[in-house]
Amino acid sequence: MENVIMMGHGSGGKMTADLIRNTFAKYFSNAVLDDYGDAAVLKSHGISLAFSTDSYVIDPVFFPGGDIGKLAVCGTVNDLAVTGAKPVFLSAAFILEEGFPIDQLEVIARSMGEVASLAGVSIVAGDTKVVKKGQCDKIFINTSGIGTIKEKYCHIATGKHIKPGDKIIVSGFLGDHEICILAAREKLQFEEPLLSDVAPLNAMIMAVLGSGTVVKFMRDITRGGLATICAEIAEGKPYGINIKEQYLPVREQVAGLCELYGFDPLYMANEGKMMAVVDRQSADKVIEVMQKTKTGAYAAIIGEITDSHPGRVVMQTQTGGNRVIDRLAGIQLPRIC
Amino acid sequence: MENVIMMGHGSGGKMTADLIRNTFAKYFSNAVLDDYGDAAVLKSHGISLAFSTDSYVIDPVFFPGGDIGKLAVCGTVNDLAVTGAKPVFLSAAFILEEGFPIDQLEVIARSMGEVASLAGVSIVAGDTKVVKKGQCDKIFINTSGIGTIKEKYCHIATGKHIKPGDKIIVSGFLGDHEICILAAREKLQFEEPLLSDVAPLNAMIMAVLGSGTVVKFMRDITRGGLATICAEIAEGKPYGINIKEQYLPVREQVAGLCELYGFDPLYMANEGKMMAVVDRQSADKVIEVMQKTKTGAYAAIIGEITDSHPGRVVMQTQTGGNRVIDRLAGIQLPRIC
Repeated sequence: MENVIMMGHGSGGKMTADLIRNTFAKYFSNAVLDDYGDAAVLKSHGISLAFSTDSYVIDPVFFPGGDIGKLAVCGTVNDLAVTGAKPVFLSAAFILEEGFPIDQLEVIARSMGEVASLAGVSIVAGDTKVVKKGQCDKIFINTSGIGTIKEKYCHIATGKHIKPGDKIIVSGFLGDHEICILAAREKLQFEEPLLSDVAPLNAMIMAVLGSGTVVKFMRDITRGGLATICAEIAEGKPYGINIKEQYLPVREQVAGLCELYGFDPLYMANEGKMMAVVDRQSADKVIEVMQKTKTGAYAAIIGEITDSHPGRVVMQTQTGGNRVIDRLAGIQLPRIC
Repeated sequence: MENVIMMGHGSGGKMTADLIRNTFAKYFSNAVLDDYGDAAVLKSHGISLAFSTDSYVIDPVFFPGGDIGKLAVCGTVNDLAVTGAKPVFLSAAFILEEGFPIDQLEVIARSMGEVASLAGVSIVAGDTKVVKKGQCDKIFINTSGIGTIKEKYCHIATGKHIKPGDKIIVSGFLGDHEICILAAREKLQFEEPLLSDVAPLNAMIMAVLGSGTVVKFMRDITRGGLATICAEIAEGKPYGINIKEQYLPVREQVAGLCELYGFDPLYMANEGKMMAVVDRQSADKVIEVMQKTKTGAYAAIIGEITDSHPGRVVMQTQTGGNRVIDRLAGIQLPRIC
């Protein structure tokens, strides 16, 4: 195998983790980065902040339910929010291909402004680069973000309070975003239109954290899917994870297309879904609070932390069998975000 | 003229400013962004920080004196430092082209780690995306950064203390980076090798700020060059700027190539140079402090703030004539950073 970048290195799964570990971590290593959260939680120089970055290279740029701009704002808002932070400031950096229509750029900028306002964040810094035709694909956007975080939530990004008996919750239907993008590329028609789930989750998360529940860990379910997050949580730990396939919320049309294309909802990217590990006493309350919000209407308990198979994630399938769940290997759909 | 993105929109000059004003600002508008500094200075939610973002799309990726990784760290460190902030945390987000050699990525990561360490910053958050061959050009890097800023320096990013009589200083030779990149692309040979000036400026800036001098404004001289910065400072103000061409520090070989290619050092991008507006009483001291540092060895006073032609920048040329200096129009060399 030639030692070059392959599409799988951008999957958010196993190859991405290996690239980070083998190529970046040894040169960038520091206590914060080594925690590998979705956002860094910074507690030094007298500041207590969450800080996150993400580049968006999605194809197509416009899709049912959103566009690259909405995605870029929601993605970073969610990366901050799942650490327990209140997202406050965003930067937006654009790489534009020569010839990209300015009216399309304006639609994108408007949707960034609108969803930033909805999420309660301000875009305070920016950058614009232009490359020649053929040197990038239309438009890439990077957003980085800063959130303020209360001391009592600083453990959430690390998951260090997780213990056997804790419940695993997902906030709604899995796979809508990835299937929506697949459908847009393949020009598939649905009887009922399928929209990307792209949305800011910070209001729902704040409602959960403010409800007196005990939340041990949160993560938005993007590249690599729920499977990869669960595998990362369990890896090297004295506990494992049990998931019940029958509890996974998946829309019928998504399940159907998954079967047709050989995709697995467990590995699919979402842009408005999160998973949480919560104390078992809090699980029903978290579901109740989530279900009262627009982004959490279909929240469900889908599994639990267990001491029966440390380090491993096991899914009990619909047919009653057991399947070991690993990180995403290779890639499902490239340029999904 | 078709309403599409053109190379000039990425020049850092007039077209970039117009794009920001007409397309982004109206949707992102807020008090912080409207200041248009190199970094946003944030003073709300109980935090006092500088925050900056930049994407790097330079071609070639490796050049004499550095590479895209070193550039990406120095660029954001410098954007923070010129606001008077102490750069503390960086993010690094990579967009990689399928097929990019991993050993080259490792060289880039190593140089990022080395210069981050030299500059005293930690890379605490990251992201990796991969696009298919032909959908980006080798590697693009975004770095965003957070710096801590003392209350007494918060005016520097705005330049609101600038007044007639203040002196204008540049920290060294202009144009080295842009001519180095041009030479690398054109495969020009020099008798003495010309290196990019890419370097972190924060140590020099901290020395200046700590020397009891009165600094009114600072900016690192990148895309658009010194001319564009001066034009931006003077625009709409009750004061103007005088520059003397004979005082501009330019290497002989850079001046020669500028003449040959029709480039103007005043508009050239640098990656380790800054300009400062300082109180006239402080000017000699600032030069003295800068000249003691490696990055400021050739610092010079090159002009002053004047009340004689408000809003305008005028350069007295070597031959004694006067030339009005505007922002960069169009573009000198694309993908310079």
